[in-house]
Amino acid sequence: MSKNEQHAPVLTLDIGGTKIAAAVVEPGGVVTSRARGETPDSSDEGALLDAAERVARQALSGADANLRDMEAVGVSCAGIINTRSGIVVYSPNVAALRRTPLRSLLSERLGMPVRLANDATLAALGEWEYGLHRSVTDLVYVTVSTGIGGGIIARGRLLEGACGAGGEVGHMTIDVNGPACACGRSGCWEALASGSALAERTVRRLEAGENSIIGELSGGDMSNVDAQMVSLAARQGDRLAKEMIEMTAYYVGVGLGNLINIFNPSVVVVGGGVTKIGEALLGPAAEVARARAYVTAAGDVDIRTALLGDDSPLLGAAALVWGLGDS
Amino acid sequence: MSKNEQHAPVLTLDIGGTKIAAAVVEPGGVVTSRARGETPDSSDEGALLDAAERVARQALSGADANLRDMEAVGVSCAGIINTRSGIVVYSPNVAALRRTPLRSLLSERLGMPVRLANDATLAALGEWEYGLHRSVTDLVYVTVSTGIGGGIIARGRLLEGACGAGGEVGHMTIDVNGPACACGRSGCWEALASGSALAERTVRRLEAGENSIIGELSGGDMSNVDAQMVSLAARQGDRLAKEMIEMTAYYVGVGLGNLINIFNPSVVVVGGGVTKIGEALLGPAAEVARARAYVTAAGDVDIRTALLGDDSPLLGAAALVWGLGDS
Repeated sequence: MSKNEQHAPVLTLDIGGTKIAAAVVEPGGVVTSRARGETPDSSDEGALLDAAERVARQALSGADANLRDMEAVGVSCAGIINTRSGIVVYSPNVAALRRTPLRSLLSERLGMPVRLANDATLAALGEWEYGLHRSVTDLVYVTVSTGIGGGIIARGRLLEGACGAGGEVGHMTIDVNGPACACGRSGCWEALASGSALAERTVRRLEAGENSIIGELSGGDMSNVDAQMVSLAARQGDRLAKEMIEMTAYYVGVGLGNLINIFNPSVVVVGGGVTKIGEALLGPAAEVARARAYVTAAGDVDIRTALLGDDSPLLGAAALVWGLGDS
Repeated sequence: MSKNEQHAPVLTLDIGGTKIAAAVVEPGGVVTSRARGETPDSSDEGALLDAAERVARQALSGADANLRDMEAVGVSCAGIINTRSGIVVYSPNVAALRRTPLRSLLSERLGMPVRLANDATLAALGEWEYGLHRSVTDLVYVTVSTGIGGGIIARGRLLEGACGAGGEVGHMTIDVNGPACACGRSGCWEALASGSALAERTVRRLEAGENSIIGELSGGDMSNVDAQMVSLAARQGDRLAKEMIEMTAYYVGVGLGNLINIFNPSVVVVGGGVTKIGEALLGPAAEVARARAYVTAAGDVDIRTALLGDDSPLLGAAALVWGLGDS
């Protein structure tokens, strides 16, 4: 990628609901230093900025680098972001971010230009650039964890939308009469196919008295039940756990099918915590997606797991700074 | 549009389930001649090509033009099309098109280079280029008639997908437990929000014995009931007709909400026969779409009716030939 040769390293930040991660990324996508800290459990904007700056400076010192050596700062953040104005409009799990001009606040703090975008959008860019090395021009990336997010590469460029808030695939309605979603609406893909949906569905069945080893695994405390625990139980042959994963796979597949119809991608990359369940989830999900995707009649689609894990938004934020989503 | 100045006129064809239309389009989007004929009701490929050639030559003679004066031929066609190979994979209402290499067949017939794409995709390009004059960079176009189709402009370029089959929005699942769709799957947007869905839903209620002036309007023949008739009845205050339109508007809105979340467009253009119902449908549909679209928190969206009517795919096909979807 000759394009990278003129570039300087980038300091990147990833601000999520529970943790803040930072990295120093060299041109070509090499991470030379990482740091992380907890996201303050507070609606105080100053506390969040303090924490972000602390983690950022820690990553810099780990790389023995200074801010002035950086090309710019790339920031990945959960939530709805207007990238034109640099404002985080709403971030469901970060109470300090409500119509917050995060780009300018961080830029003032650090004395550096900042580029800001949604975490799943940047993960898509990271996976495309450094996972797939741009081997395709049309990619759909979906992250299935507590919620569902997404990012799209179309004709070799990042899909942004009019104000940079595109790719909000988790709140696509797939069941118009379906269950309530955390967003306040109902029947969203996220309400049916996310890790939280899997856990909640399982808990409801346990509370209704169904027999399962998840009861023991959770120590009787239903708040311990999560996607990982259901997966563990399924591997031990637990009938309820297997059924719950099958149902989640079905809903994951329905949403993927929609995105395949809409984007006709050659590759769909699935990331996020729920993919740790592995083939038991992704196999049937891919089958459902292909069966429901009308356009696969014109050309098949490769559905695979993400390669970069937690690094993807950090690498995507660096790629954003280097302008790699625009070419 | 200085870009157009070097260009020659384009002969365009639009092949649909019931009619074939042709036009000669001058640079700048001026139609100088139109012709139309019926689509042969036959699975004979030769009969379809004969009919297409006849209509095409009629349009040429109406413009007093020869094929050799044309830059190329732009062809819009209903169905799933692999634009890379020029093959119409499947066209639900044109029996003669089943894995048909339409681009090369027409190119041989006419002795001219041919560009081929899906009709709704080209209608999107036509509306963007000649309806909105590129006043936006991010546009979602949806046509709601017998079925539902769509086309997308993202970052000022036509969304194509890996093999040119993108934008198949009508077969996005919005009700995973919903009714059967003509495509063989179920719960597709088209199965709930199209003109056919509106008519079928109304007929079911009439057959169940509900009182409505549609009974008289149809002359007692349920096969006469269509979206236009329901609209007429609603304007006369018919309670059932009003309820049916409200329900259709709701489903139209749910699907539009999904597309707004996914693309974050600044404008959504709705075309197709069903829009003739007017504000009684589009008003409530737009309201539902905005309420369900998560990303409108970052920036509002303008939802409006299409401007070019039946000309949009013909103009889009000309724009395709001139390379206007790529810049």
